[in-house]
Amino acid sequence: MQLYGYFRSSAAFRVRIALNLKGLAYDYVPVHLLKDGGQQLAPAYRKLNPNALVPTLVDGDLSLGQSLAIIEYLDETHPQPPLLPSDPAGRARVRAIAQTLACDIHPLNNLRVLKYLKHGLKVDEDAKNGWYRHWIDVGLTGLEEMLAGSPQTGRYCHGDTPTLADLCLVPQMFNARRFDCDLSAFPTLTRIDAACRELPAFEAAEPQNQPDAE
Amino acid sequence: MQLYGYFRSSAAFRVRIALNLKGLAYDYVPVHLLKDGGQQLAPAYRKLNPNALVPTLVDGDLSLGQSLAIIEYLDETHPQPPLLPSDPAGRARVRAIAQTLACDIHPLNNLRVLKYLKHGLKVDEDAKNGWYRHWIDVGLTGLEEMLAGSPQTGRYCHGDTPTLADLCLVPQMFNARRFDCDLSAFPTLTRIDAACRELPAFEAAEPQNQPDAE
Repeated sequence: MQLYGYFRSSAAFRVRIALNLKGLAYDYVPVHLLKDGGQQLAPAYRKLNPNALVPTLVDGDLSLGQSLAIIEYLDETHPQPPLLPSDPAGRARVRAIAQTLACDIHPLNNLRVLKYLKHGLKVDEDAKNGWYRHWIDVGLTGLEEMLAGSPQTGRYCHGDTPTLADLCLVPQMFNARRFDCDLSAFPTLTRIDAACRELPAFEAAEPQNQPDAE
Repeated sequence: MQLYGYFRSSAAFRVRIALNLKGLAYDYVPVHLLKDGGQQLAPAYRKLNPNALVPTLVDGDLSLGQSLAIIEYLDETHPQPPLLPSDPAGRARVRAIAQTLACDIHPLNNLRVLKYLKHGLKVDEDAKNGWYRHWIDVGLTGLEEMLAGSPQTGRYCHGDTPTLADLCLVPQMFNARRFDCDLSAFPTLTRIDAACRELPAFEAAEPQNQPDAE
């Protein structure tokens, strides 16, 4: 398998954790989102991923974008250890936590959006950082409430083994720290994030541990 | 089951289609996103859905947000007709199409984001509409390429029965028309959208056919 990614991409980070947890070997192919006007926009890469985003997983004939789709694919084709609970209600809860991060927070703060704010809307640096922190704050406030109030929350987001939800939480918390967001209102999220980062599979997936890290 | 929604919410629209395709009866509870300063922010609703977004599906003790998680839950608990293919690669493709719409396009254009652009960043009406059309255009361009170039695309996004991918496509196309986006560059998406809208389950789920339509 090949994983096309960028060291700092949260979405690629999620997939790297999944591959590590499952002990799957893969070739890492860096796609630099800033060099050459954005290597993800090159025609050869767009053939693999017409959305011109990272990550892309190539597994034989299959070329697949979208981190959550990739992780569910890996979970279906390499079931151990499972990244989703076995009961439909538990699976739904884990997916809902993951989607809160992947649909409600991250898309508003990724690189192409910040670039559009700056160059397309001429938003200044302060307002851009305000935007970033606003969506983190709104999203993590809901998530903290969701997790702190549930008996299903354990050492990790759902019980005592890492799931798809944790794979999305950790990269988001990483970014929040990078942008100096105040995380003191999110003790449950902070606790779970720290527990995850004790696991070698999470640590090895961190941006600074990738071959393309700067 | 109760579905808390708003007639114009794309995410609620997706779930309504799923419930209709599966022939499941449900009580529809309108949550007006503009009245009373946003009824989704009321404490009673936040207890059901701490993210303060629509839709929420309540099924017995379970209270579940996030449209894609809800639809997968419905598909697991009421398997007929299936909304995902049976093979992992097909499931991954359908989820990737759905997530392109639900993670890469829709979150940038929903109501709370447009409000922040207007009130938080003081962006004028033209620039706001430009933002809206930009993300639709970028997202649908990738999706058109993905679908037009694949032998797996059929009458619908994946083969000849509707899947989760179509449930996300139709509300997005509905919004694009509402904002007068030029869709002429997306013949495959337009064809599939029209095929879906011939089905009563899709038509009954349209915003103007909801009890809270204005």
